[in-house]
Amino acid sequence: MPKDLPSDEIRRALHRAADLAADYLESVERHPVVPRIQPGDVARQLPVAPPEHPEAMDAILDDYLRLIEPNVTHWNHPGFLAYFGITGSGPGVVAETLAAALNVNAMLWRSGPAPTELEGRVCDWLRQLMELPEGFHGHINDTASSSTLVALAAARHRLPGLAVRERGLAGRPEVPPLVVYACDQAHSSVDKAAIVLGLGQENVRRVESDAAFRMSVPALAAAVAADRAAGRLPMAVVATVGSTSTTSIDPVEEIADLCAREGIWLHVDAAYAGSAAICPESRALMQGIERADSLVTNPHKWLFTPVDCSVLFVRDLANLQAAFSLVPEYLRTGDAGVTNLMDLGFQLGRRFRSLKLWMVLRAYGVEGLRAHLREHCALALALAERITAEPGFELAAPVPFSTVCFRAVPAGLADPAALDRFNERLLAGINAAGPFFLSHTALRGRYTLRVAIGNVKTTARHLDALWDLVQETARGLLPE
Amino acid sequence: MPKDLPSDEIRRALHRAADLAADYLESVERHPVVPRIQPGDVARQLPVAPPEHPEAMDAILDDYLRLIEPNVTHWNHPGFLAYFGITGSGPGVVAETLAAALNVNAMLWRSGPAPTELEGRVCDWLRQLMELPEGFHGHINDTASSSTLVALAAARHRLPGLAVRERGLAGRPEVPPLVVYACDQAHSSVDKAAIVLGLGQENVRRVESDAAFRMSVPALAAAVAADRAAGRLPMAVVATVGSTSTTSIDPVEEIADLCAREGIWLHVDAAYAGSAAICPESRALMQGIERADSLVTNPHKWLFTPVDCSVLFVRDLANLQAAFSLVPEYLRTGDAGVTNLMDLGFQLGRRFRSLKLWMVLRAYGVEGLRAHLREHCALALALAERITAEPGFELAAPVPFSTVCFRAVPAGLADPAALDRFNERLLAGINAAGPFFLSHTALRGRYTLRVAIGNVKTTARHLDALWDLVQETARGLLPE
Repeated sequence: MPKDLPSDEIRRALHRAADLAADYLESVERHPVVPRIQPGDVARQLPVAPPEHPEAMDAILDDYLRLIEPNVTHWNHPGFLAYFGITGSGPGVVAETLAAALNVNAMLWRSGPAPTELEGRVCDWLRQLMELPEGFHGHINDTASSSTLVALAAARHRLPGLAVRERGLAGRPEVPPLVVYACDQAHSSVDKAAIVLGLGQENVRRVESDAAFRMSVPALAAAVAADRAAGRLPMAVVATVGSTSTTSIDPVEEIADLCAREGIWLHVDAAYAGSAAICPESRALMQGIERADSLVTNPHKWLFTPVDCSVLFVRDLANLQAAFSLVPEYLRTGDAGVTNLMDLGFQLGRRFRSLKLWMVLRAYGVEGLRAHLREHCALALALAERITAEPGFELAAPVPFSTVCFRAVPAGLADPAALDRFNERLLAGINAAGPFFLSHTALRGRYTLRVAIGNVKTTARHLDALWDLVQETARGLLPE
Repeated sequence: MPKDLPSDEIRRALHRAADLAADYLESVERHPVVPRIQPGDVARQLPVAPPEHPEAMDAILDDYLRLIEPNVTHWNHPGFLAYFGITGSGPGVVAETLAAALNVNAMLWRSGPAPTELEGRVCDWLRQLMELPEGFHGHINDTASSSTLVALAAARHRLPGLAVRERGLAGRPEVPPLVVYACDQAHSSVDKAAIVLGLGQENVRRVESDAAFRMSVPALAAAVAADRAAGRLPMAVVATVGSTSTTSIDPVEEIADLCAREGIWLHVDAAYAGSAAICPESRALMQGIERADSLVTNPHKWLFTPVDCSVLFVRDLANLQAAFSLVPEYLRTGDAGVTNLMDLGFQLGRRFRSLKLWMVLRAYGVEGLRAHLREHCALALALAERITAEPGFELAAPVPFSTVCFRAVPAGLADPAALDRFNERLLAGINAAGPFFLSHTALRGRYTLRVAIGNVKTTARHLDALWDLVQETARGLLPE
């Protein structure tokens, strides 16, 4: 009879992991944000053959400290300002430890009563904080990509008379091409969802944006009319609140008017900026989100919850269940009146993700969360002001939240291609220094640097040092 | 400037979580497997309004202990024998703590070098252990539902001349209905994938199974021929190795012959039993899996890794990337020759899941894993022998792995509906006792009990006690 690993060794290893995690959270700044390694550097230190014999946890954790921790990109570093700055906060790490020990799969209420009910309650807390209507139902997926895929599947299911769930889309002359609309600034997950759903990438209309990178509603209306005229069926509009490049905010209210008029599903992608909706002054920037048919927001982006935690709200829970529910005999429990999470999407298995959101919301409290979000927005505004005030730099987009897009525009460098190259080298120089990691984007075809602030440990001191580094690096790139 | 939570409070909370997790792993048997609560019992103890003020971690963890831990279904309990018995092992819990602290999103090599390379290596270890060909590429998804969805999207992408990715399935007379074949015993995730992909549930052929619940290859061939004759396009066959109800094994070798002959994608769903492929004697039961185009196996099912960890292997990595890759400017890194995990499916975000699989494989070693898997199979066989030997009970299916299907057939009770009711009451009685949780299924329409053994702490002592309980409960249900 093989015995499990000794209990006392596991307990010791869990305590060592607690210290490793606490050390990491306290002193992550000892690492450069991006490790200075090349592809293959880690792989070549990992044995090619699987481990035949058991190894002691202490040896494994020594390897973790030597080989893994220094060679990750440090998303939990206050100098991580790329993509979106995020936080795996202490309370979230505590919760993930416990969720892994419980190892619950909350596919059914019966298979995870507390996880199912906690998920319902914390999603409803978030709904209240975001000022979404009562009756909106929230549940947790892994990523916004999954949430948007699920939302668009629900939109497809609501199309009258097509019976897509049963009969599919192919070989049916009566089913026209189904079209999804999103801003040219919208996230690539919209295209991926359209690909997966069998709509086709060509049937995603990338609607042009205005000077502030917000979807043009006249252009949207024209696209919808053109598709109808061509015999295609407008299925859903994805409005973005906090786009990935610039955190621009589509005019949701006007888009909602159009969707209501046209009978089109409105999905709001607030994966990043939805967290800010808990602050009334930011919520005011996104009027209309309460009219969505579905909305995704990711607490793992800007609500200090470790990845993965994406909350999908839907107005019509019964429609979502009708799109997906499919219960084999071995999962019939006879529990009446319960929501079974497996009926809300394509994934049967459901990790206990609400535990971390619960602990984070309680440990920070709404007032703590708001204070951090406001601080991040203030830091971004202060940086934007410096950029605007500094000759040789320009702000590239408005700053509604905590992300700043800018570029260097050194005097005497007018050629667009040369400017792009200069900014590319500027980014490389900044990132090579170690304490910061920025990413870039293209805005109207122009290379643009992004500073995305979202870690609870990022302070004015970091932004001061970054701005010094930006200026110094730019100076170093200029001809003498 | 708001401060983050105090470091010393987080460290204390992490250590308390370490003890809570260790206590739980040591003494989970103090809980009944299924909590004795009704829907709403937990929710009504959770405040309706979100928490305004920060709360101390100790108060939150007190609530965890009072409200959450006792009210989950204890999947990590050695008496959990429902669905599939699983294990969130100590090394896996350690790894999840660290992964949450690192909080990496390994969407790109650059955004997670060690996670990307570790994922490649541990999946390759598993490939070797499962005797899959060199060149098969493995990566980790959340669930088998996602893995199968991704695999079938890749199958669809390989269809020549249809350009489904770009143009979709709708409104195209030249695109015939696309058909997926799976055994009548296959998992519902196949239907869900067909729904999501826009194939339609009607285009999933549920091929009849033989007396041992294995897909009938003549029936499959007939179904394929009928679909071709009707102008439909056979797209993929899903062969199941270890079906959910009985762990039956489809004749993969013959199915692979048919797929090769017909040019149909072969996806193998080995979500549960794939783990057993690391034991040569079990691997011998699934000859032909090495010929698959794609194969999913879930280490979170029977390889002692906490949920979620589903490994998808594909033969043709380039085809998978072509089905999904879509790189916006802000994710272009210029790193040549690397695999970016975001290109391998619809989910952009990628949690650092390989860390737990790495720690589990090393802590148990291949010899330890094999010993546990063999013990589980031996326990199942021993139980099956008892059932066969006991008048008033019958084995309902062969036992190739660690799951036993049986029913009570008390003398004098011949009516099928009455037998079903008897077994339903038997299951309810067993589960009400507390130390065990079994699930049920329907086999040829008959109510059947399942005992699924997969927790590393489940021993012969548990199975002895279960068998006593089964007999005693059955006796109590018989008329005097």
